[in-house]
Amino acid sequence: MAVYTEVSDEEMSAFIGEYDIGDLVSAKGIAEGVENSNYLIRTTVDSYILTLYEKRVREEDLPFFLGLMDHLADRDIPCPQPIHGRDGKALRRLAGRPAAVTSFLEGLWTKKIRPVHCAELGGALAQLHAAGADFPIRRMNGLGPADWRPLYQQAAARAHEVDETLAPLIEDELAAVERAWPEDLPAGVIHADLFPDNVFFIGERLSGLIDFYFACNDYFAYDLAVCLNAWCFERDRSFNITKARQLLSAYRAERALSQAELEALPTLCRGASLRFLLTRLYDWLNCPAGALVKPKDPMEYAAYLAFHRQVEGPGAYGLD
Amino acid sequence: MAVYTEVSDEEMSAFIGEYDIGDLVSAKGIAEGVENSNYLIRTTVDSYILTLYEKRVREEDLPFFLGLMDHLADRDIPCPQPIHGRDGKALRRLAGRPAAVTSFLEGLWTKKIRPVHCAELGGALAQLHAAGADFPIRRMNGLGPADWRPLYQQAAARAHEVDETLAPLIEDELAAVERAWPEDLPAGVIHADLFPDNVFFIGERLSGLIDFYFACNDYFAYDLAVCLNAWCFERDRSFNITKARQLLSAYRAERALSQAELEALPTLCRGASLRFLLTRLYDWLNCPAGALVKPKDPMEYAAYLAFHRQVEGPGAYGLD
Repeated sequence: MAVYTEVSDEEMSAFIGEYDIGDLVSAKGIAEGVENSNYLIRTTVDSYILTLYEKRVREEDLPFFLGLMDHLADRDIPCPQPIHGRDGKALRRLAGRPAAVTSFLEGLWTKKIRPVHCAELGGALAQLHAAGADFPIRRMNGLGPADWRPLYQQAAARAHEVDETLAPLIEDELAAVERAWPEDLPAGVIHADLFPDNVFFIGERLSGLIDFYFACNDYFAYDLAVCLNAWCFERDRSFNITKARQLLSAYRAERALSQAELEALPTLCRGASLRFLLTRLYDWLNCPAGALVKPKDPMEYAAYLAFHRQVEGPGAYGLD
Repeated sequence: MAVYTEVSDEEMSAFIGEYDIGDLVSAKGIAEGVENSNYLIRTTVDSYILTLYEKRVREEDLPFFLGLMDHLADRDIPCPQPIHGRDGKALRRLAGRPAAVTSFLEGLWTKKIRPVHCAELGGALAQLHAAGADFPIRRMNGLGPADWRPLYQQAAARAHEVDETLAPLIEDELAAVERAWPEDLPAGVIHADLFPDNVFFIGERLSGLIDFYFACNDYFAYDLAVCLNAWCFERDRSFNITKARQLLSAYRAERALSQAELEALPTLCRGASLRFLLTRLYDWLNCPAGALVKPKDPMEYAAYLAFHRQVEGPGAYGLD
């Protein structure tokens, strides 16, 4: 939680009064989501999440994000459903910021990923891709391959402060990925940031997908590549092929992967590693000294990238 | 939230399983309480607060704090009630730290204090003082008059970094308060930190008192002095005698103040100002550069202290 907008009790109560969700009885600022201020609120009717959108989310993207959650929730994807005010609007303003109330999802995110979690994730991801098919608004990926080189240029001069090997690795990889990036794979709405802290489980059952604020239109298989990076490496940075096989098999049970998608998978995985390596590097170098929230280690993704670089084909991810 | 212990979903579920409160369905880290890690948890039965005690709370004090909340809640003081595990224990361990689950209190703390809130507070404070009378454990005030000079000595050399006027003010005031501190006033269990963010309201009705981690045995009237400082100054640092009168009148309707307590009130208010001035000064000077949580301004309490220093008697606080 990098930023936190404080809202007075009076403003908050008045704001909740614009919805048909009962009277406000409690509001707690929660340590969830790095980009926005989130409150878990309770009314006389139910629990909800109130989000105030901070600077890192562009206001013009909010109709896409909120519209998408509405669209997916209507199609039984377990994601937060935006609550509409009496005037029909889901996107409002509070304390000078864009704000929205969404339904509260039960479940906990798991810090100890097991293959069964990856299988649940794979199935839910395929369902998400299918459910987004007829969503009418489009949003470019703001962190796609075309954005990686400019992002690196903002960090290049200081990359050696993190590790001497980083600059040559990234430069080599940028060239390789730009060269090999596939041209025409099946595409649609993807989540693009489906890390374990964005997926809730009750026991072994997936109960919620949250944080759609990187969602965009891009290759479906790139979403899988993000998940392979985020879910299938162990703490010691080794790749767990069993988890990958579970993830991919469960996905394919819902949506077939084309030959082109299978062949592109190693390149897409390298790209996804590079994307998180670059944003982590940027955040690491731009973190204020003594900040309480320690940025995530970019070298973790350098290790994942090294794995994907030596892969010879999609079989390395447990595909038959 | 200065420190935050992350607890895995598996540890958390196993921990909740030691209580008779249903199965865990959600847990959110909340931005409440600076000293400890707090989670708002939901089970299949109800909502609760799970607290992990961080370094700033001494483990040997926990039986006092938890025992006190149990004692007060049993006497209908609206405070968090510790939940006992199946083995009868309220104080347990989680993620290597002492931990406890308490009942969840509805309500919001108010950022816009009105006289009616002060009246509610006064009544609740008198009831708290009465309800604590037969609590058997004792705890010295760790931030009483004897602790102020040693605390100042840790900050004295750098007090001028905050403001040039601070060192002479504090030195003069330490001498004055040590000289004038009353010797024998009615005493018992006090909250000692009843700031607005520790008091919940639903509408104008007080619904909860929280954060008993400074509670101790000391003069009852000192607790009133803390509240006069915390609740009765405006944002422009002027004193609002109407709020003070409401606070004191509502208190006196429940518990009479002796002549000695009335006469000591200006000195107790000076002491309470000094106590928060000193801890804020210490925190200000010891805050890491670039920290995300900005420490509170010590000069606010220098202004309150200046008010109390020119007071000629208890009438200045709205007393007849």
